[in-house]
Amino acid sequence: METVQQLEERVRALLAERDQAALRALLAEIRPSEFVDLVTDFSPEEVAILLESVEEDEWRADILGELHPEQAADYIQTLPHDEAADLLEEMDPDDAADVFAELPEAQAEQILIQMEPDEAAELSELAAFPPESAGGIMTPAFVAISPTMRADQAVVALRKVAEEAETIYYVYVIDADERLLGVLSLHRLVLSRPETPVGDLMVSDAVFARALDDQEAVARLITDYNLLAVPVVDEDLRLIGIVTQDDIADVLEAEATEDIERLGGSSPLDISYRRAPIGLLVRRRLPWLLFLFIAGAYTSSVLKFFEDISIEVVALSFFIPLLTGTGGNVGSQTVATLVRAMAVDEVQLRDVRWVLMKEATVGVIMGAVMALVALGRAELLGVGSDVGLVVAITIAIICVWSATVAAVLPLILKKLKVDPAVVSAPVITTLVDGTGLFIYFTTAKLILNV
Amino acid sequence: METVQQLEERVRALLAERDQAALRALLAEIRPSEFVDLVTDFSPEEVAILLESVEEDEWRADILGELHPEQAADYIQTLPHDEAADLLEEMDPDDAADVFAELPEAQAEQILIQMEPDEAAELSELAAFPPESAGGIMTPAFVAISPTMRADQAVVALRKVAEEAETIYYVYVIDADERLLGVLSLHRLVLSRPETPVGDLMVSDAVFARALDDQEAVARLITDYNLLAVPVVDEDLRLIGIVTQDDIADVLEAEATEDIERLGGSSPLDISYRRAPIGLLVRRRLPWLLFLFIAGAYTSSVLKFFEDISIEVVALSFFIPLLTGTGGNVGSQTVATLVRAMAVDEVQLRDVRWVLMKEATVGVIMGAVMALVALGRAELLGVGSDVGLVVAITIAIICVWSATVAAVLPLILKKLKVDPAVVSAPVITTLVDGTGLFIYFTTAKLILNV
Repeated sequence: METVQQLEERVRALLAERDQAALRALLAEIRPSEFVDLVTDFSPEEVAILLESVEEDEWRADILGELHPEQAADYIQTLPHDEAADLLEEMDPDDAADVFAELPEAQAEQILIQMEPDEAAELSELAAFPPESAGGIMTPAFVAISPTMRADQAVVALRKVAEEAETIYYVYVIDADERLLGVLSLHRLVLSRPETPVGDLMVSDAVFARALDDQEAVARLITDYNLLAVPVVDEDLRLIGIVTQDDIADVLEAEATEDIERLGGSSPLDISYRRAPIGLLVRRRLPWLLFLFIAGAYTSSVLKFFEDISIEVVALSFFIPLLTGTGGNVGSQTVATLVRAMAVDEVQLRDVRWVLMKEATVGVIMGAVMALVALGRAELLGVGSDVGLVVAITIAIICVWSATVAAVLPLILKKLKVDPAVVSAPVITTLVDGTGLFIYFTTAKLILNV
Repeated sequence: METVQQLEERVRALLAERDQAALRALLAEIRPSEFVDLVTDFSPEEVAILLESVEEDEWRADILGELHPEQAADYIQTLPHDEAADLLEEMDPDDAADVFAELPEAQAEQILIQMEPDEAAELSELAAFPPESAGGIMTPAFVAISPTMRADQAVVALRKVAEEAETIYYVYVIDADERLLGVLSLHRLVLSRPETPVGDLMVSDAVFARALDDQEAVARLITDYNLLAVPVVDEDLRLIGIVTQDDIADVLEAEATEDIERLGGSSPLDISYRRAPIGLLVRRRLPWLLFLFIAGAYTSSVLKFFEDISIEVVALSFFIPLLTGTGGNVGSQTVATLVRAMAVDEVQLRDVRWVLMKEATVGVIMGAVMALVALGRAELLGVGSDVGLVVAITIAIICVWSATVAAVLPLILKKLKVDPAVVSAPVITTLVDGTGLFIYFTTAKLILNV
C-alpha cells in the first residue's frame, strides 16, 4: 500500500505539472479521511486547487466535512458567495454549522442570503449553539414520524429520506407539537408486522439530551446505553436534532487532548498542533510559565533564609535538584493517575478519604525505598554520614508529602468547579519544590545542630 | 434524580436488612451501567449478594458484561461450575471471553467442560487472542449469508438471528469457505427489491481488520470510514468476527489513559485506579522513580564539580530550583503537546524538521521573556547585577534547550519503536536539570570570572 508520504509526493508532482485530469483521477479514488491526511502540509491555496480539480459538489462537501472547520472555512472564503452557499447546503448540517461558525461575520451574512431560506435558518440556528454542547454537535438530519403511522408506511417514509438522514437506524416518533414521544429501531421496524402502528412498537421512555448539555455528558449517555444515536430536545422538549455515535469518538479524543495539554502545564490549544501558529503556542504556555516562576520564586527566599547553613555545610546544596526532582516526580505520577481517574468518572469528591489513604501509603513505601537509595548516593559522593542521614530523612518525608498534596489538590479543585487537570506536573513540582527545601534545611538544622 | 450516592445508601440499607424482595424490585429498575457505578465501593461478597437477588440469568449476564472483567470473574468464581457455564453462555461472547481470561486456569477448564461444546470452543478461541488485538475485542455474533440469497430471504434469515447477533445493521456475505466477499447494510437490504440477489447489492471491497491487528488501528478504521462495525478475518481471510462501534469508545479511552499515566511518569496500571491495590501502584511507579533518581544523581556531581564557585558566590545557589524548575516546565509543556499530537497521528517522524523549528522558536520567545523576569527577581532579592545577568542568560538558554530536547526525543523514541509517551514530564525534567546546572555554572564562570 502507498504511504501518505508517497501519495503526497505524487500529488505535489501533479500540482507542479498542473495536470488537472490526472489529479481528478487520483483524487476520485481516495477517501475523505485520506484526503485530510494528505493535505495537512499543504497551503490553503494548494488545498483550494485540489478541491477545485474535482467538479462534483457532493465530493467536495464530503471532504469539507472531514477537514478541520478552520481549514474548510479558509476554502469557503475563496469562493463566490453563491457557490459557497451551494456547498454549505450540500454538506451535513452539523459539519456545515461548524465551518459556518469559523467564517468572518460579514461574509457569513452574505453567504446566508444566498442560501435557501429553510437551509439558512437551520444553519444559523445550529451555529448559534456553543460548539461543545449537544446542540453544537447534533445534526438536524433525522427521521421523525407520527405515532399513528403503520410499520409499512414508516418503511416507505424512510425510503424517501434515506439519502438525507444522517442515520436511519432509529426512527423518532413525535406528536403534533414536535415533542419527542419515543424511538424505534430500524430492525424493530422491519422485523414487525406491516400493519402495526409505530406507536405500539416504539420505546416510549427514550433517553435524550438537552441542547445545552455538555458534549461529554452526551458522549457518556451514548456509551453507557450503547446507543447509535441520542435525540436532542430544546427547552420545550421538542425534538431538534440527534447526536450520532460516530461523533462521540471525536468528543472523547478532544477531551483527552485537553487534559493531556493541561497536565503538561499549558492551556489547551483547541486547534490541531500542526495548524497552531507559534504565537498561539506562546500565548498558551507563557502565562503558565510566568505563573510557575513567580509561584516558585519563594524557593530563592527559602534558600537565602538558610544561607548560613549552606555556607557551613556546602555539601547540602549538592542534593537540592535530586530532592526537589524526586518530590516533583512523585507528585506528577500521582496527579496524572488521579486526574485521569476523575475524568473517566472513577473517582469523585466523596472518595477523598480512601484516595488519600491509598496515596499516602504508596508515598510511605516509596519514601522508605528512596531513603535507602539516597543514603547510598550520599555515601558514594563522600559527603559524610550526617549529611547522608539528612538527605535520606528528607527524601522520605518529601515522598509522602508530595503524594498527599497531589492526591488532595485535584479533588479540591473539582470542588471549586475548576478543571482538576490544571494541577499539572509543573504546578505540583513548583508546589513541592519550596516546601521540600524548607523540610530539607529544617531537618539539617535539627540533625547537624548548625 | 437520585444520585449514585443516595442509591448506594438505599442499597446498603436493604443489604443490612436482608430485604431480598425490595432489593430485587430496586435492581430491576436500574441499567447495567448504573449498577456498575453503584457497586464500585462494594466488596465482592456484597456484589455477589446483589447479583444473586435477581433470578434472571439474562439480567445477570448483562451486568457481568458491563462490570470490569476482573470483578465479573470474582463473582463467577463463587458459583458452581455448571451455573458459571450457563452464565458465560448467556453473555455476549466478547465479554464472556474477557471474563474467562481472568479466571484461574484450573477453574476455567472445569467451567469449559460444563459448557455446550460449540460455545466452549468459541469461548476458548476468543480468549486466546491478545486482549488488545482485533481478535481480543471482536464478537463472533454476526450475520453471514451466501451471495446467492435473495434480499427477502436475507430479511427472513435476519429475523431468526436478530436476538443473538451483536449488530444486525450489517450483513456479511461469505463464500463456501467462509471467506469474506462483501458487506451489505440493513438499510440497503430493506430498501431494495425483494428478489435481488444479495451478491448484487453488497459492497465488495469492504474494509476489514486482521485478527492480530492492534485495537487502536481497528478504532482508527472505524472512525475514519464512519462504520458501525468492521469485519475481522483470520490468516486465510475467513470471517471470524466483527468489532462494533460501541467498543471503540472503550479502546480510545483506554489508550488515552495509558498515555496520561506514562506522561505522568509511571507505567500504565491497566486496571482501574479504584481497583488497583497499593502494591500494584508501587510496582508501576517505584521503578521509574528509582531510574529517575539514578539518572538525576549526576546533578550532585555537577554541583560538587562547581563547589568552589558556589562557595565563592553563594547567591548562585539561590536560583537553582527556579532554573531547573523552569527548564522542566518548558520541557513538560512541549512533550505533552507533542506526544498527544503523535498519538492522534498528527505528527510523524518525517515532521521532525518543522516540529523542531516551531518548538525552538517558541523556546526563544519564552526564553527572552523569562530572562527579563529573572532579572527582576534577582534585583528584588538583592544579589547584585552580575549574578542577575548570569541567571537571566541561563534561563534563556535553558528554555531553548528544553524545548528542543523535548521536541526531538519523542520522535526519536518513535523511530526506535518505543512508546513516545515514556518521555514523561519527569524524564524530561531530570534530563534538563543536570544539563541546565552545567550551563548555569559555566555561564557564571565566564561572566563572573571566578
